[in-house]
Amino acid sequence: MKKIDMIVKAPHFFTMAGDGVGYQTGTAMLVNGGKIAGFADSARVDAEYAAEETLLLERHAVLPGFIDAHMHTGLAIARGLAQDTNNWMMYGLQPFDNVIGQSARDAGSRLAIVEAVRAGTTTLGDYEHQMDEVCAFIKKIGARGHVTQLIREAKRRVYDPGELYEYDPAMGETAFNRCLALYDRWHGEADGRIRILFGPQGADFLSLELLLKIQKAAKERKTKIHMHVQQGDRETYQIEKRYGKRPIAWLSDAGYLDDTLIAVHLTDANDDEAAVVARSGAGMIVCPGSIGIIDGVVPPSTAFQDAGGNCGLGSDQAPGNNCHNIISEMKSVALFNKIKYKNPETMPAWRALRMATIEGARAIGLSESIGSLEEGKRADFIAVDLKKPTMLPVYTAPMRNIVPNLVYSARGDEVALSAVDGRVIYRDGRVLAVDEETVIGDLENFVPDIGRDATEEFWRIHGTNAEFMEKGRL
Amino acid sequence: MKKIDMIVKAPHFFTMAGDGVGYQTGTAMLVNGGKIAGFADSARVDAEYAAEETLLLERHAVLPGFIDAHMHTGLAIARGLAQDTNNWMMYGLQPFDNVIGQSARDAGSRLAIVEAVRAGTTTLGDYEHQMDEVCAFIKKIGARGHVTQLIREAKRRVYDPGELYEYDPAMGETAFNRCLALYDRWHGEADGRIRILFGPQGADFLSLELLLKIQKAAKERKTKIHMHVQQGDRETYQIEKRYGKRPIAWLSDAGYLDDTLIAVHLTDANDDEAAVVARSGAGMIVCPGSIGIIDGVVPPSTAFQDAGGNCGLGSDQAPGNNCHNIISEMKSVALFNKIKYKNPETMPAWRALRMATIEGARAIGLSESIGSLEEGKRADFIAVDLKKPTMLPVYTAPMRNIVPNLVYSARGDEVALSAVDGRVIYRDGRVLAVDEETVIGDLENFVPDIGRDATEEFWRIHGTNAEFMEKGRL
Repeated sequence: MKKIDMIVKAPHFFTMAGDGVGYQTGTAMLVNGGKIAGFADSARVDAEYAAEETLLLERHAVLPGFIDAHMHTGLAIARGLAQDTNNWMMYGLQPFDNVIGQSARDAGSRLAIVEAVRAGTTTLGDYEHQMDEVCAFIKKIGARGHVTQLIREAKRRVYDPGELYEYDPAMGETAFNRCLALYDRWHGEADGRIRILFGPQGADFLSLELLLKIQKAAKERKTKIHMHVQQGDRETYQIEKRYGKRPIAWLSDAGYLDDTLIAVHLTDANDDEAAVVARSGAGMIVCPGSIGIIDGVVPPSTAFQDAGGNCGLGSDQAPGNNCHNIISEMKSVALFNKIKYKNPETMPAWRALRMATIEGARAIGLSESIGSLEEGKRADFIAVDLKKPTMLPVYTAPMRNIVPNLVYSARGDEVALSAVDGRVIYRDGRVLAVDEETVIGDLENFVPDIGRDATEEFWRIHGTNAEFMEKGRL
Repeated sequence: MKKIDMIVKAPHFFTMAGDGVGYQTGTAMLVNGGKIAGFADSARVDAEYAAEETLLLERHAVLPGFIDAHMHTGLAIARGLAQDTNNWMMYGLQPFDNVIGQSARDAGSRLAIVEAVRAGTTTLGDYEHQMDEVCAFIKKIGARGHVTQLIREAKRRVYDPGELYEYDPAMGETAFNRCLALYDRWHGEADGRIRILFGPQGADFLSLELLLKIQKAAKERKTKIHMHVQQGDRETYQIEKRYGKRPIAWLSDAGYLDDTLIAVHLTDANDDEAAVVARSGAGMIVCPGSIGIIDGVVPPSTAFQDAGGNCGLGSDQAPGNNCHNIISEMKSVALFNKIKYKNPETMPAWRALRMATIEGARAIGLSESIGSLEEGKRADFIAVDLKKPTMLPVYTAPMRNIVPNLVYSARGDEVALSAVDGRVIYRDGRVLAVDEETVIGDLENFVPDIGRDATEEFWRIHGTNAEFMEKGRL
């Protein structure tokens, strides 16, 4: 009898090994030291292995935990306050963003992280200005954090239409140094579950000099740059006016497109530009729900993939999406691309599931350790309850229908259990290490002040949502 | 003290009265004799009214129950067996549809209806060949049924490409008579909660003679015709070849476009054709998820609305959608149209919510009795739990964010309670009148036989999903 930490018994494993979904049945998964130790014949596993713990998941399918590769969790404090409007930043978010303090953002992060974990996310690609509290919370609940701190050099002020951003090198330097300090404090913490990435906000928000300095620092530390790339016509305008090139061409000439880069959005990139990024070895993250709501655009993720690139999924932020639920993003990326190409065979369910797991892991440089259930990888997995109405009935012959139903039918509450590094962090509706009522209560404390402080600018700017309030439409 | 049946206390009511969302606060809803008796000041209601029952919904928003205006619930027995393929009918559904008997379809219906109710649907627009068991189940659980029995005259056989369907008048007559008999048995049953509509399958599947006979019978009975209209290039081809006109032009000339008609899909209709239907007074139902998956198309529902028509939402069927969750359809109709028109202001959340409630009720001719919470209407309502992470935080000033979060963030499990005719039918995860385990068990009994019986044709036809099985992608 070999001693191991855990045996995971389930009738269906979607390991995501190989180029499909790596289906296995009649096996049990072995976990030891936080890693997957392999699979054993389920009929013999109890005779061959003595486990500290056995997870009996008799009505479940087991899969790798989902990767939400791009999130601004702090903005969950402003969920639902910005959508259905042109110029989302100005007419939607600004009146609120201006008055939300750091502790409110941290409370928002805790809610969004709980929300994401409840729907099967185990790796959180969070991205904001001040990430210490997020790191601490991810450590506390036992999840995996792929955390980026934002670096920006352009002064925060109102710019006239057509005006170039004004850089403040001292501000940029400070942000960069704060990112380095966060890296030193957190990278590799929580048994390696926390990794810190460098987050230049976008090509238009930093000088070339600072961008290259960040790149050098990231490469020296063997970490990644996580950057918004060609995320809108605003960025395209700024880069064209400043340098005479479109953003991706300029980044390419600057030597910024390579496998250190994780490129987010590509909202304003055409298919050829997406292919340029893909061929450079950079990863891509697409945020279908967010960009759909904010811009009415389907970014060129399939062109990126067709050029050989790996693309993950992100939920972005709650004002303008408005949720952190990777199952929703899987359905959206599949449907939006079917619609974009007028072809129901575009982006099938299994491909969307790969984006949420192994392809996402490759896109962000973590495929050596997560994204599939294979021997030697970290034991990050979820169990989906197949007795929920949305997953029923279950067929195994002549075809299996579990993956299409997970992608197109599941709501999120089918996820019954999540584990990271072989440790169960979520079960039966509860994130185990936190009291959800406390998370909610903390969040709600900030609401009256934010509402009051935003009121004057909300009515002064008088965006779409102000009009909706006046007309009784909210 | 006035005696009434029920007081519903909640901090937020979205009544959907007027042209917005009809928001009320500081009121309580009065229910008597299955109807809404009005609203009272929440501070004085207990002094003024003595109620048999008080629903205390202190953390909830109360709205009209959702209307799922077009469903084929029986096909839930085949959930997830047909998607991601061209020629959905042939390459996806056919191998399974051919071998599913009526009792299996009835079991599928029970599951789909439970699934829909769990996500807030109170009115079920179900549509199939044999609807007695569906009517009985809807009656049993206390929901509202807007039930259509299908009438078809075209022989069921394989047609060569380009071949016109062959009509079998005796078969059409039998189906029509069975529909009349269903009407006599069920219309007005369950205290009027069940209504029976006439369901010619589509303009291409019936002769003009039978279509007009059905129309006459529907008008005499003051019920509706619920018909697939210009639902694909197959229909367009058949009608053009037979009559030399496109389907909507032909139906218009035949006098079929009027307020007796509920026109579903319009997949292959252009904006002008949609406007023709709208101006005729016919209602429309759009099924965004289903048509997105099956065809990669966004039907012209906004053009229909712009021409003054009322359009409701439908979940269609589980093989090819794959869920019965109107919240998912609200998000899809909003996002798909933003993408179609490259405009984030297209189809805001409140408009999608109106489609699921009052506009849907108008589209199907039930707005005198349901779709909004107004005095004199039936007391069909749902309570949404605002303490779920997806609905948090809740702002009321300077703007309310509840509607955008319900449409864009909610998963379905936020619906904590549903009532129809003032009677609670769903609460805290349970459809009260049935044992969900029994519903699931009944369904699962049919799975082995269907899988076995479909196997030969599944592999012979060898569609996309057969290929996916061979390649380990399912």
